[in-house]
Amino acid sequence: MFALIMAGGSGTRLWPRSRKTQPKQLLDLGSGRTMFQEAYDRVVPLFGDEGIFVVTSGEYVPMMRQQVPSIPADNYIIEPFGRGTAPCIGLAALYLRRVDPEGVMCVLTADHYIEKAERFRRVLRAAARVAEEGHLVTLGINPSFPSTGFGYVCRGTALGTVDGFEVFRVEKFTEKPDADTARRFCESGMYSWNSGMFIWRISVILREFERLMPNLYAQLMEIDAAIGTPQEQAVLSRVWPQVEKETIDYGIMEKAADVAVIPVDIGWNDVGSWSTLLDILPADENGNVITGQHVGVDTHKSLIYSPHRLVATVGLEGMIVVDTGDVLLVCPRERAQEVRALVKRLQEAGRDEYL
Amino acid sequence: MFALIMAGGSGTRLWPRSRKTQPKQLLDLGSGRTMFQEAYDRVVPLFGDEGIFVVTSGEYVPMMRQQVPSIPADNYIIEPFGRGTAPCIGLAALYLRRVDPEGVMCVLTADHYIEKAERFRRVLRAAARVAEEGHLVTLGINPSFPSTGFGYVCRGTALGTVDGFEVFRVEKFTEKPDADTARRFCESGMYSWNSGMFIWRISVILREFERLMPNLYAQLMEIDAAIGTPQEQAVLSRVWPQVEKETIDYGIMEKAADVAVIPVDIGWNDVGSWSTLLDILPADENGNVITGQHVGVDTHKSLIYSPHRLVATVGLEGMIVVDTGDVLLVCPRERAQEVRALVKRLQEAGRDEYL
Repeated sequence: MFALIMAGGSGTRLWPRSRKTQPKQLLDLGSGRTMFQEAYDRVVPLFGDEGIFVVTSGEYVPMMRQQVPSIPADNYIIEPFGRGTAPCIGLAALYLRRVDPEGVMCVLTADHYIEKAERFRRVLRAAARVAEEGHLVTLGINPSFPSTGFGYVCRGTALGTVDGFEVFRVEKFTEKPDADTARRFCESGMYSWNSGMFIWRISVILREFERLMPNLYAQLMEIDAAIGTPQEQAVLSRVWPQVEKETIDYGIMEKAADVAVIPVDIGWNDVGSWSTLLDILPADENGNVITGQHVGVDTHKSLIYSPHRLVATVGLEGMIVVDTGDVLLVCPRERAQEVRALVKRLQEAGRDEYL
Repeated sequence: MFALIMAGGSGTRLWPRSRKTQPKQLLDLGSGRTMFQEAYDRVVPLFGDEGIFVVTSGEYVPMMRQQVPSIPADNYIIEPFGRGTAPCIGLAALYLRRVDPEGVMCVLTADHYIEKAERFRRVLRAAARVAEEGHLVTLGINPSFPSTGFGYVCRGTALGTVDGFEVFRVEKFTEKPDADTARRFCESGMYSWNSGMFIWRISVILREFERLMPNLYAQLMEIDAAIGTPQEQAVLSRVWPQVEKETIDYGIMEKAADVAVIPVDIGWNDVGSWSTLLDILPADENGNVITGQHVGVDTHKSLIYSPHRLVATVGLEGMIVVDTGDVLLVCPRERAQEVRALVKRLQEAGRDEYL
C-alpha cells in the first residue's frame, strides 16, 4: 500500500504568496508547516516514509527534500512538465509497480487541507480494502454548501459497509455544475464533491489505462521499457511532449465500469483561494487571521499576511491584505477568486518578476 | 505687508506618511511639491521672498530651508514648542514689527490646499486694504457642504466692497457645530467656514493681545525686551513653558470688537485626512489616485500610495492603501478620520518607531 502525493501544481489563486518558483503546496500558509509537509504528516503514520511517493516537477524537488528529508530520494517521480492528472498518475504507476506489482496506490494531493487526519487515515485504510477487491475507489466529500467550484460524484447502489464507512457504486461523475444544479445535487443527498483522491490496485488502474486511454498507455509502455536503463531520461523527454493533456476524471473515472465512492467528512477543503484560508486558519477574537504585526481599529474577519511590515487597519470587514515584500494584494474576500485575473494581467504585461 | 506662514503642526491624520519628524506640511502628497512649497508658491508673487516669514518648530527648519532655499534664514521665527495659534501669532508679531511696526501681516497656513491661487492673492490684497483701516480680517470660505469639522463665521452688516470682494462685519464665531446646526448654517447663507487665515495690522493685533489676553501680552513683552540681546534664547526658554495654550480664535477673534470677514471661493481644503486627498489629487479614469505601481481589477475611487512595491487590487471601492515601507495602512475612505485612533494606539504601546 503506497501513498502517491501529487505535488506538481502551481496555483495562482494564492498569489502573491504562491509563485512559479514557490507554488502553494510548498508554502506555510499559517499553520507552521507547509502544505506538502502537512500532506506528509497526515499519511506517514499509515504508510511510513518508505511507502510515500511524490510525483512532481523536477524544479520543486530540492525544496521538497528540504521540507521533508525523511522521504527517500528514490521515492520522487519526476514529470518533465504537467500534462494533467491522467499522464501523471500513469507515469507514477509504472514506478510503483516495480516496488510491488500487486500493491494498492492511494492518489493524494499536496494542496488540499484536511482537518480530520485520523479519520482520513481510517477511510484510506477502508478504501484500500475495497480497492483490493478490484474497484477503483474515489473519496467523496460530503458537500457543506452548493459549491459550483467542484466536480460532483453521484452515488448508485450500496456496496456495503467497510470499517464503518458506507461504500457505493458510482452512478455518475459531473463536472463543475451551475448554481441551480449544485443546489439540486446538495438537496438530493446523493452527491459528494469529487475530492480528486483515488485508491486502487496498480494493476487495475493500468488495465483501465490500456482499455480507456490506449494512446497514453502505449506511450507509458514505451517509457516503461526504458525505466532503469541508460535511455530512461532520453525516452521520457522524447515521449512526454507527445502525451495529450488529460485529467484522470475525464480520461478514466467517468468511463470506468467499476468505480466505488466512499462519502466522508474529513474537514476537507481545497484551499482554492485566500478566502478559503480565512475559513481554515485559526482566527483571533475579532475573527481575523493575522500573520505578522497588526494594529487595527474595528477590523473583523480579515486575513492579514505581512511578515515584513506593520499593517494598520481601520474599519475592515472581510478583507484580504497580503504583503510579500515585493507585492501587496488588497481585495475583499468575496473577490478572492479574481486574484487569477491579476496574475493574468501581469503575465500579459510581461511582469515575470511578479509571477 | 508680510506673509506669516504657520508651519509648526504635526498632524496625525495623514499617518503613516506624516510622522513626528516629517509632518504633513513637509510632505509632497502627490502634486510634486510639498505643502510648504505650495504655500510658498502661492504667496511669493505677492510678498517676494523677503516678505515671507515662517513660524515653526526649530527641528523642521533645516528641511524647510532645503525645500524653499530662497526665503531668508532670518525670516524663520522659532517657537520652542507649540502653544496654540495665539502665542504663535503673538510671538511672530514681535519679530515682524521690528521690520515694519506699521505693517500688515497675513497669517497663513502651510497645511491647507488652495486650488485658486490667483484669486487667493487677490483676496489677500483686498483684505490688506481692509486691515489698513484697523479691522481684524478673517477669510471666510463659502461652505461646499455642512461640515462638522470646521468652525463657522456668521456675517453681520455689510462693510462694502473692496476690489470686487464683499466685506462684512463678523456677527459671531462658532466652533465645530453638530450636524443639524451645520445644516442650518449652510442653508441660511450667512455662514462661512473659518479658514484660520487672518489679515491685520501688527499694531492692531498687538493692541488686542494687550486688551484680551493680558497675561500672554505681558509674557510677550518680557520676550520682546530680550529680542536682539544675548539673553533672547534664555528668556524665550524660560517664559514659553509658562505661556498658556490657546487658539487665536478663542483668545482674540471671538472677543474682538472689530472683526471683518471676506467670504471667498478659493478652492480651499484643509487636507485633514486621506479621504480629502482623494478629492483633491488628480484621479485616473477609474477615479483612483495612484502613486507608485498598481495593477487593479475593478478598482475605483481609491487612493493608493506605494512608491516601494507593486500594489495589486481586486474589487476595491473608495479604499485608502498607503504603504510607506515600514507601515502599511488600509482603510475605507469614510473611516479615514480614525487613523488618529491608530496613532494613539501606537503611542500607548510605545511604538515610537512608527510615530
